[in-house]
Amino acid sequence: MKRIEVGLRRNIDDSYQVYIGEGILERVGMVLGADGSADRHVIITDSNVEELHKKRVQEAFEKTGLRTDCITIAPGENAKEISTVVDLAEKLLSLGADRKTMVIALGGGVVGDLTGFTASIYMRGIPFVIMPTTLLAAVDSSIGGKTGVDAASGKNMLGTFYQPKKVFIDLDFLETLPDAVFRSGLAEAIKYGAIESPEMLDRIKKAAEKGALRKIGFLKRLVAESCMIKKRIVELDEHDYGLRRILNFGHTTGHAIEAASGYLLSHGESIAIGMAIAARLSEKLHGLPATSRKMITETINAVGLSDVIPPTVGAEDIIARLSMDKKKEGGKTNFVMLRRLGEAFVNGGIQEEILRETLEESRT
Amino acid sequence: MKRIEVGLRRNIDDSYQVYIGEGILERVGMVLGADGSADRHVIITDSNVEELHKKRVQEAFEKTGLRTDCITIAPGENAKEISTVVDLAEKLLSLGADRKTMVIALGGGVVGDLTGFTASIYMRGIPFVIMPTTLLAAVDSSIGGKTGVDAASGKNMLGTFYQPKKVFIDLDFLETLPDAVFRSGLAEAIKYGAIESPEMLDRIKKAAEKGALRKIGFLKRLVAESCMIKKRIVELDEHDYGLRRILNFGHTTGHAIEAASGYLLSHGESIAIGMAIAARLSEKLHGLPATSRKMITETINAVGLSDVIPPTVGAEDIIARLSMDKKKEGGKTNFVMLRRLGEAFVNGGIQEEILRETLEESRT
Repeated sequence: MKRIEVGLRRNIDDSYQVYIGEGILERVGMVLGADGSADRHVIITDSNVEELHKKRVQEAFEKTGLRTDCITIAPGENAKEISTVVDLAEKLLSLGADRKTMVIALGGGVVGDLTGFTASIYMRGIPFVIMPTTLLAAVDSSIGGKTGVDAASGKNMLGTFYQPKKVFIDLDFLETLPDAVFRSGLAEAIKYGAIESPEMLDRIKKAAEKGALRKIGFLKRLVAESCMIKKRIVELDEHDYGLRRILNFGHTTGHAIEAASGYLLSHGESIAIGMAIAARLSEKLHGLPATSRKMITETINAVGLSDVIPPTVGAEDIIARLSMDKKKEGGKTNFVMLRRLGEAFVNGGIQEEILRETLEESRT
Repeated sequence: MKRIEVGLRRNIDDSYQVYIGEGILERVGMVLGADGSADRHVIITDSNVEELHKKRVQEAFEKTGLRTDCITIAPGENAKEISTVVDLAEKLLSLGADRKTMVIALGGGVVGDLTGFTASIYMRGIPFVIMPTTLLAAVDSSIGGKTGVDAASGKNMLGTFYQPKKVFIDLDFLETLPDAVFRSGLAEAIKYGAIESPEMLDRIKKAAEKGALRKIGFLKRLVAESCMIKKRIVELDEHDYGLRRILNFGHTTGHAIEAASGYLLSHGESIAIGMAIAARLSEKLHGLPATSRKMITETINAVGLSDVIPPTVGAEDIIARLSMDKKKEGGKTNFVMLRRLGEAFVNGGIQEEILRETLEESRT
């Protein structure tokens, strides 16, 4: 038997800058214009964001000499499927986009996931940048390079790890967010506080109590600190082999609750409840102090989110969905637990009785 | 404006072994069983290959303790589309495949491209290996990590660079190939000879004249040398920024002829004609000696392929398709030319009159 080695060892630098500021659109245009990796730029956005921001963004870019085309998709989670990717690719092709074309995701998490995935597979990969317009995308999905689309049988069933070339977080976009959407982002920020930074948790609670959650100074710090926490975790575990899983604090039961509610509960509302449940389990099983659990639920309540499972969502339905996930994950449910605030770890096996009991306790 | 760097510098080793031999199935099972990167294995094949080889392959694997599941797709180029990828992913999910599952592409180029693409995006990437069953896949598509599917508007419009973990070329598979399919692979081998190895070209011609093309000794050397040539080019230009384009010798007009024939001409038949045209252009424009051009066309004819455009395929149709490609490639048609045998380079601009004249000369 003959053997030939195809030798593909190399140093890779996929590092990128996350820019955070107010009214930074013109500077974004300049930074992109000065970047030589692309000779043209196409914005991908959804029709909601298009109406709110597209004109202003394109005009600010043009002032710096950056001309952009724009492709608009339908808003909402339903667009996050492979047919939208094919559609985006066809539209890119008809615009004449080639491997020197950069796409710009302008929108929330769905636009980012779709644009990133399309960029990663269009002509075997073209560069992309993200301009998040929601707090959720700013603090969470824009950093880390996870892209993907859902399928009937699973969320993010098809996707890639594909890092953006840059992320530009213009805080001005967050002003137009409806409160409910804004709170979804806060839920993820509370997550970072719980798993990594008790100080941040405290700051969110105090800002909520003072009615200062939407003040720009608070937001700038919140976004920057969230990005710092996420980036440190992603740097250590880009491809999600272990540590990165602590970012799923509150998400295991949160996702099950979201689905069991028929998606009447938003992602943020669901993971808020999921975090309260995870905190309860952590207290029971891993000695999380009661005061710490209280701190988490009080912060959740302070920002206007509920920490209890609504009566319409049945415990058995949640458990059934958790065991479906378990099957998909190779027989393990990865619950993220806290030993104390800021100290998270993955616990692969929680007994069903304890889970059932805790779900019942989480109703009031 | 605040800046945070996400630091993702790392050393990557995507190197892999290509194993070439006769009757190596049991050894394949052992090599895969000993590789700790996966805890289960799923074969992806098409219904033609399934009928010919699946039972033998699975039995040989089982002798070494390697149990495999198998997913079968429809044969032929038409399967190379995104709906097949979604279908494969759904089937993998229903088998419970997770990130520790390895997929094995058992088949020709289409099976390899589809399996590689699916592996690259299923759960953001799972390992895959290739077992080519055609000469074309053995000498060409199995090495280099190009994966993809076609769309209405373009070949390989969606795809990735995603390297297999291993390639196992069992020469026994080549015995069952129909002559026409076998010749398609020979056309690619002739290409390697023309662009990199005049000795190999000579050897193919002599083997053809002796009727020894399908002798195992000849094939083993042909496959190994082709793999060596391709791997050296891929090692230098994995992501197709320049050098790798010389692998398209004969392919620019070849693809146009293939499409213009309504796909009545096979890929191999088409690129054989494309190579003859490229040799003619090289003689005219870049001083390729007439004897070298003759050597290429004689080798093409010796293996039973034609070097002339059939009367049913119109020159204007070919030219129209070339300018469509040109638009897609950002205004350039990348013709690969020869200065002499074994010395290829990319010429971005050939005048339409010269092309038209050469196409007319290539009819007889």
